[in-house]
Amino acid sequence: MKLGTYKDGSRDGQLVVVSRDLSAAHYATGIADRLQQALDDWGFISPQLQDLYETLNNGKARHAFPFDPAQCMAPLPRSFQWADGSAYINHVELVRLARNSEVPANYYTEPLMYQGGSDDFLGPTDDAIFASEDWGIDFEAEVAVVTGDVPMTSTPEQALEGIRLVMLANDWSLRNLIPDELAKSFGFFQSKPATAFSPVAVTLDELGDAWKGGRLGLTVESTWNGRKVGMCDAGKEMTFHFGQLIAHICKTRNVRAGSIVGSGTVSNRATEVKGKKEWTKGYSCIAEKRAIETIQDGKPSTAYMKFGDTIRIEMKGRDGQSVFGAIEENVAPLKR
Amino acid sequence: MKLGTYKDGSRDGQLVVVSRDLSAAHYATGIADRLQQALDDWGFISPQLQDLYETLNNGKARHAFPFDPAQCMAPLPRSFQWADGSAYINHVELVRLARNSEVPANYYTEPLMYQGGSDDFLGPTDDAIFASEDWGIDFEAEVAVVTGDVPMTSTPEQALEGIRLVMLANDWSLRNLIPDELAKSFGFFQSKPATAFSPVAVTLDELGDAWKGGRLGLTVESTWNGRKVGMCDAGKEMTFHFGQLIAHICKTRNVRAGSIVGSGTVSNRATEVKGKKEWTKGYSCIAEKRAIETIQDGKPSTAYMKFGDTIRIEMKGRDGQSVFGAIEENVAPLKR
Repeated sequence: MKLGTYKDGSRDGQLVVVSRDLSAAHYATGIADRLQQALDDWGFISPQLQDLYETLNNGKARHAFPFDPAQCMAPLPRSFQWADGSAYINHVELVRLARNSEVPANYYTEPLMYQGGSDDFLGPTDDAIFASEDWGIDFEAEVAVVTGDVPMTSTPEQALEGIRLVMLANDWSLRNLIPDELAKSFGFFQSKPATAFSPVAVTLDELGDAWKGGRLGLTVESTWNGRKVGMCDAGKEMTFHFGQLIAHICKTRNVRAGSIVGSGTVSNRATEVKGKKEWTKGYSCIAEKRAIETIQDGKPSTAYMKFGDTIRIEMKGRDGQSVFGAIEENVAPLKR
Repeated sequence: MKLGTYKDGSRDGQLVVVSRDLSAAHYATGIADRLQQALDDWGFISPQLQDLYETLNNGKARHAFPFDPAQCMAPLPRSFQWADGSAYINHVELVRLARNSEVPANYYTEPLMYQGGSDDFLGPTDDAIFASEDWGIDFEAEVAVVTGDVPMTSTPEQALEGIRLVMLANDWSLRNLIPDELAKSFGFFQSKPATAFSPVAVTLDELGDAWKGGRLGLTVESTWNGRKVGMCDAGKEMTFHFGQLIAHICKTRNVRAGSIVGSGTVSNRATEVKGKKEWTKGYSCIAEKRAIETIQDGKPSTAYMKFGDTIRIEMKGRDGQSVFGAIEENVAPLKR
């Protein structure tokens, strides 16, 4: 099934069930008001939501209305955890190659992960607001999962069983703030402002055999200012699958229901074209484009985003239909 | 007023108002079921809680019962943000001095802060459970505040106005996991398991003039295995006050109601005793004791905590009464 959260002036919004083709929606009133509630009691609540979903898909739901992504908050407008991995090692390799630094050996055996802020997520069409254009504003197109309870020391295989929902994320990053923060060795903080999520989150059965072993074998499409810049395969080249990412958190603590775990920037390797490396799939964040330019030309030529820029992130299923709806945001200045 | 959360089998527990002397409590039923609810709508709900608090203190509350910290979850059993600073620069100086490394200049002008997991906090008397004794189990006694909404780019002074509650935290740390994590440059993750909080969180008026300019001028008492090891003043030597810590988060994003912001390990400077440095106030984490030993003897002699160890963290007001109740935890092995 597909679930979203409609704006209603409250902090957590109203849970809606959305039809498979994203054309219609229905409030889940009487079943659960908020998505977190459903996740807290998934075994009891999700079958009821599933029933409503089937009725809605069959055109039989009595109070259905046209689904409008612009009315959506993030599926979880705030959450108790947002842990973002860096699961596509190609992304790390590119960035490191551009600055002539080697990838540490343990990057291949252990996921990189940072803890993100989760008190104030952006809806899929909310403006992304920044106080300065000089911070190196960048998008990051990612896949993210929402978990149930996954106990401390769970294995990657056990952790896979704890995945409830999948969605897309735009993990906004402020590139020019990153070097100083990483130098302080405490990790990202100011360089990771509010993250945006897709209009709907979907259960694994919606993904069919595109979901395999904790990886989603579909293409993340990134469109910057109307130009398609990324068509990256989220599946094969994901070095650590979602079960491994969740198990990484579980090493020393429990993961509780409603935790969001991200894949990191979806990134694909170069292919050899006439003896030359070419990144034919494009990019899911500008930092990677700039790394490629640096490798090829000695310096980056693509600037980061400016106020007024737009970004669209979407993923189509094997039937060509949008799976999660599109993240479509404008970069906007803070009004004081 | 003083607020706590009683265990009721649910994930968020039941909000209770606790008397000033911590002897009696009263369910806030009919006003708010959960603390997060009160924080979401503080202007409307807090005066009602305050009325109940006064009635309770006057011995007039109709359904009061003896307050038992062992029935408490953390005041916020899970929260949408847990951002922990390192606001006592003396702590950083000590640790760095022990390994002959200088404190970077910007540590004095800009707070260090990491984003912690907030989906699974420990109550004040819950066992702290670890899968291994070899991870360098350490307590960290801290002061923490709970905020209302604080908008992006708020100044430290504006941020001070956003503080709703104050409590104590034990920010459990796994010291032997830290070097590898910091070397990966993404910050703490597995080295920071579930954090514990005091039985109650209190409003600023409870602190009288001990609360001044965003610092709490009272003593954090740490008692390890029945031995008092720390009597550290949380006030004067806090390099960055809580308004500065919150404003640090606000640089690039909004801080939303119910965010918890920690001070980092409370730490005091050495004093000169007969021409020799002495750390007379003791320590609020074992890492600091080991740093002092390394400075004095060339190597640490105090081991980290073992299964069966106990830690008690408390703070007395100027009247000698416990302000927040005590965090009293056992270190326990994971039962598989």
